[in-house]
Amino acid sequence: MRSFPENLRLYARLTVGEGLALVEGQELLVWAEPEQLEFVHFLAEEAYRIGARHVEVFMRDPDLARIRMREGSEAAIGYAPAWLLDGVARAHREGAARLGLAGGDPELLAGFPAERVAASARAHAKAAREVMKLVADMEINWCLIAVPTAAWARKVFPGLPQDEGLARLWDAVFSVSRVFESDPLAAWRSHSETLEGRVRWLDDLRLDALHFRGPGTDLRVGLVEDHLWAGGRALARNGIRCSGNIPTEEVFTMPHRSRVEGRVVSTKPLSLRGQLVDGIEVVFKNGEVVDAHAAVGEDVLRELISTDDGARRLGEVALVPASSAVARTGLLFFDSLFDENAASHIALGESYAENLAGSEAMNEAARLDRGANSSLVHVDWMIGSAQVDVDGIARGGSTIPLMRGGEWV
Amino acid sequence: MRSFPENLRLYARLTVGEGLALVEGQELLVWAEPEQLEFVHFLAEEAYRIGARHVEVFMRDPDLARIRMREGSEAAIGYAPAWLLDGVARAHREGAARLGLAGGDPELLAGFPAERVAASARAHAKAAREVMKLVADMEINWCLIAVPTAAWARKVFPGLPQDEGLARLWDAVFSVSRVFESDPLAAWRSHSETLEGRVRWLDDLRLDALHFRGPGTDLRVGLVEDHLWAGGRALARNGIRCSGNIPTEEVFTMPHRSRVEGRVVSTKPLSLRGQLVDGIEVVFKNGEVVDAHAAVGEDVLRELISTDDGARRLGEVALVPASSAVARTGLLFFDSLFDENAASHIALGESYAENLAGSEAMNEAARLDRGANSSLVHVDWMIGSAQVDVDGIARGGSTIPLMRGGEWV
Repeated sequence: MRSFPENLRLYARLTVGEGLALVEGQELLVWAEPEQLEFVHFLAEEAYRIGARHVEVFMRDPDLARIRMREGSEAAIGYAPAWLLDGVARAHREGAARLGLAGGDPELLAGFPAERVAASARAHAKAAREVMKLVADMEINWCLIAVPTAAWARKVFPGLPQDEGLARLWDAVFSVSRVFESDPLAAWRSHSETLEGRVRWLDDLRLDALHFRGPGTDLRVGLVEDHLWAGGRALARNGIRCSGNIPTEEVFTMPHRSRVEGRVVSTKPLSLRGQLVDGIEVVFKNGEVVDAHAAVGEDVLRELISTDDGARRLGEVALVPASSAVARTGLLFFDSLFDENAASHIALGESYAENLAGSEAMNEAARLDRGANSSLVHVDWMIGSAQVDVDGIARGGSTIPLMRGGEWV
Repeated sequence: MRSFPENLRLYARLTVGEGLALVEGQELLVWAEPEQLEFVHFLAEEAYRIGARHVEVFMRDPDLARIRMREGSEAAIGYAPAWLLDGVARAHREGAARLGLAGGDPELLAGFPAERVAASARAHAKAAREVMKLVADMEINWCLIAVPTAAWARKVFPGLPQDEGLARLWDAVFSVSRVFESDPLAAWRSHSETLEGRVRWLDDLRLDALHFRGPGTDLRVGLVEDHLWAGGRALARNGIRCSGNIPTEEVFTMPHRSRVEGRVVSTKPLSLRGQLVDGIEVVFKNGEVVDAHAAVGEDVLRELISTDDGARRLGEVALVPASSAVARTGLLFFDSLFDENAASHIALGESYAENLAGSEAMNEAARLDRGANSSLVHVDWMIGSAQVDVDGIARGGSTIPLMRGGEWV
């Protein structure tokens, strides 16, 4: 059995080599909490050893975020540093890759007014619009992984002593990321190839829509014409094939922004902007949310969908078997990077260019015209479970069973 | 007696109120090491409470700096992120104030080749040129203070257990910053006024040169015509009167870049780019360093003065009594923010616009023509002690005793 530092190093190597597929001479931007710095040191070593030109680490300090939320004036809450986000956009245009580290406190901003949290998020999303676009359009190679913090471990394992919870959470992260395999990078590639095979199968079906049925859910998600399924690795426009999420168990494609009909309930809680939302019930008509409720955090949900028109429509639909590696941990993570890989899900907001054939040659208006959604937000929430069936609807109207009892047919 | 957190809060309040003199609606940029975050939280609270628009904290991670120095390719060492430094310059042009936190490991980069460290520093200085200019020209209010780290404490108190050393170092920092006074902000203002009185006295003398004499030192430092002395608070061009350094015990002015003659020895060691330099002996002719030696770190010194032409000439000369509050601690800090306030000193490199009357209306060429030095670097080193006398030389050639045995006459 390997030591924890050995596993950390392998995880860093997996992130640099397979997640980012960082190339010699490339710059890397990382966002990390203070507690995540130990991992960042391994990561920076691996990046510099393969010839990274620079590793810039930006600090995301949870205490500072809370202090700002508590003490900041209204002007402060409505402000985001455009000089910084424009600089980050420039770095990406000049070729820098991007790594996000999930794993912070799922309830970082619990107790603060949802309106205040939303105002802050909106200001940031506006200032980060170009950065978000570069990411959503896969102009660069990027990756999102998780590096556990004590606050996250307390939420996932409330009954355990903190050290034990943190160790258990690391085990789960290593496990679903294939770090415990004898050759983690090879295991990850093999897993990616499995997902990529499923993508080819779904693309060949040339579906018109997906139909989700389960307790409280009867949702028909129309897909854009020329939609492409994605999953596993993606080829960024800078020519680098990267894994945008580690872990990932999903295959996903692009809903048509005006062709979603029916009702759907969430199957797992969701940490949204550092606040919990649970028991979501939503009705869609002509692609738009016309009724939305949540048993917990309804105000947070309402603020989200009032961000802009696109926040009331879908940008992504993803299929994940209820027996995925993440689901098999039996854990509820309160972090979408994990929970969305344990259940089929949909996302309100921005769509991904890679899910629409020929999108790189289209401007924003042309994409909208094709049914691609656009928004300042992109929020995944889980709608799949072992009680949910999914059918594909072919263009002629015939039904193709895709999932039964949460599993691939 | 106040608790440590109470003193930390007062120190943060002093920094925001007197050091930066931050105004409502102003943005603040802070550079901090992970160990300094506890203080940064107090600081951010104080800043937001007076209505700061935003507090952006950049992480300076010592481990990451060492990893880069150890593992980075030659291209990585010669690279600095212009996209970030240009963004910071834009923030300052748009009105952001700036706070630096000294107090890191004085030997952060001990053992790395001086040439590699210098290449990194040069790349950074070039990319940061506009930022450095905005600071040197006092376009914005800025401040440099110290927040002790364990590595610094180990260097200052090598014989003490780490916790005790850190506590002693905090005591010294609080003491020289007047935090232990019953009203620290009032005490700091009173101290500033004392320095400002000395500035007016020296300005009225309208000196032509300073003459330092002591063991190994016989140095005549010609001053630019229309030089201005500075000390205590400075009026930034954005209209805010701030204290650029806490602590500060110096009054300083502008040498003429071509009128420095003689030899001088350092009286304290110096931490330069994370490496120690000690026992400096330098000969100046026509303002230029023509011979330079150091008992420790001569390679570091040689790399420094080969940065550019201005790095071989003086940009600042400062007078500090050997009995200053910092000197009275009896400590050697290995940090220029402190050691330069315990002894008279000179600085190789960039000059300060505030030390030349009318400089705001001059371009770079006009300033050079007046004798103002320009360089990518600005490095203070200590040449004063209780054995050093300082005379002022009036324009007519007469001698005015300024300091005897290291003390004001």
